[in-house]
Amino acid sequence: MVLVPGNSLLTATPEEGRALALTLARHTIHNIQPGLDVLQGGRPNYATTPESLMRASQVEALEFQTIAAANNYWRS
Amino acid sequence: MVLVPGNSLLTATPEEGRALALTLARHTIHNIQPGLDVLQGGRPNYATTPESLMRASQVEALEFQTIAAANNYWRS
Amino acid sequence: MVLVPGNSLLTATPEEGRALALTLARHTIHNIQPGLDVLQGGRPNYATTPESLMRASQVEALEFQTIAAANNYWRS
Amino acid sequence: MVLVPGNSLLTATPEEGRALALTLARHTIHNIQPGLDVLQGGRPNYATTPESLMRASQVEALEFQTIAAANNYWRS
Amino acid sequence: MVLVPGNSLLTATPEEGRALALTLARHTIHNIQPGLDVLQGGRPNYATTPESLMRASQVEALEFQTIAAANNYWRS
Amino acid sequence: MVLVPGNSLLTATPEEGRALALTLARHTIHNIQPGLDVLQGGRPNYATTPESLMRASQVEALEFQTIAAANNYWRS
Repeated sequence: MVLVPGNSLLTATPEEGRALALTLARHTIHNIQPGLDVLQGGRPNYATTPESLMRASQVEALEFQTIAAANNYWRS
Repeated sequence: MVLVPGNSLLTATPEEGRALALTLARHTIHNIQPGLDVLQGGRPNYATTPESLMRASQVEALEFQTIAAANNYWRS
Repeated sequence: MVLVPGNSLLTATPEEGRALALTLARHTIHNIQPGLDVLQGGRPNYATTPESLMRASQVEALEFQTIAAANNYWRS
Repeated sequence: MVLVPGNSLLTATPEEGRALALTLARHTIHNIQPGLDVLQGGRPNYATTPESLMRASQVEALEFQTIAAANNYWRS
Repeated sequence: MVLVPGNSLLTATPEEGRALALTLARHTIHNIQPGLDVLQGGRPNYATTPESLMRASQVEALEFQTIAAANNYWRS
Repeated sequence: MVLVPGNSLLTATPEEGRALALTLARHTIHNIQPGLDVLQGGRPNYATTPESLMRASQVEALEFQTIAAANNYWRS
């Protein structure tokens, strides 16, 4: 299971950077729990529970901090 | 579902930056749970539970850290 | 509901910066839950529960990280 | 209730910086809940619950990040 | 129990950096709980609970922030 | 109870830095709860609960961010 698809944190745009951040988080979870059926089995629970959705967005926010800094916030 | 509306982290003011941070968090949650009815169904719960409101503000604080750094804290 | 009163992260002192950080968190929560009665209704719960008070201080710590960096830690 | 005693983030040593970080967190909680009796009433609970102690140390870690950066990590 | 295998935060690629971040988190947990049987005994629980998987990915995100900054985001 | 043993964040290696981060977290908890018997009494609970172990590793990750930055990530 690749942890960093493309093996780079550099993206052309914030949108791509945001998507990469989501991918990093998902690949980490998939690395910890390789069973796709288990992960999909948990979705009806977390995808309908506000607290779980917020925690997922919290992880995304942390991952995006790293990607955004890596890309110098796409300022240029 | 666009993750970063406008595909830029740069805003004219802190107020706009703060609003963008809220938008990033909401679009991430909407990306994870596309069902607007599900999201709205959860609102009576999280919007009246102090712990959930605090977690939402925690995510906002993290997203705003990124936006503020991107805009060099609107110092100029 | 204004998210960043004064539309600036710059303050004269750490004390003002700390107060602004509290204000940012409160205005975010108020933005998510406009019902003041709902917010005040939750206070007897969160303001007497150690875990909730700690979570609130955690959000304050994150917001203050941003404000302190914006003001270059009031070093000068 | 003063939020930042001494109105400065600068300390002579890491030890003083660490103590200031604890003070910032405590003053924030005291600002949210002015009732000392309420705060002391919660102590038998949080001070004997591992998860609560960990959350308190998490807040301290975040506050210390800010103080350490403010003092350039006391490198000189 | 070594905390930082190789005693360096520098890696050749983001993929290796991401793996090192996972290792740091795991070695810390193993340092706190040396009993491998205890750790493995907990897996059926945390590896099938969405909230736990998210918390694990949150720790990974934090550790990766450090590794990525250490490697200047592998920009060169 | 000393908060920062050695009163410095500078260490020779990442391994020592990682150990210092653990020490900072532990000394903070011990500062909040001076009762060693209470702390040891909580261990059978937190040291066998995945969520608690993850939270402890989260605090370690935050403390290590500070120590690593203080030591310029031991790049030289």
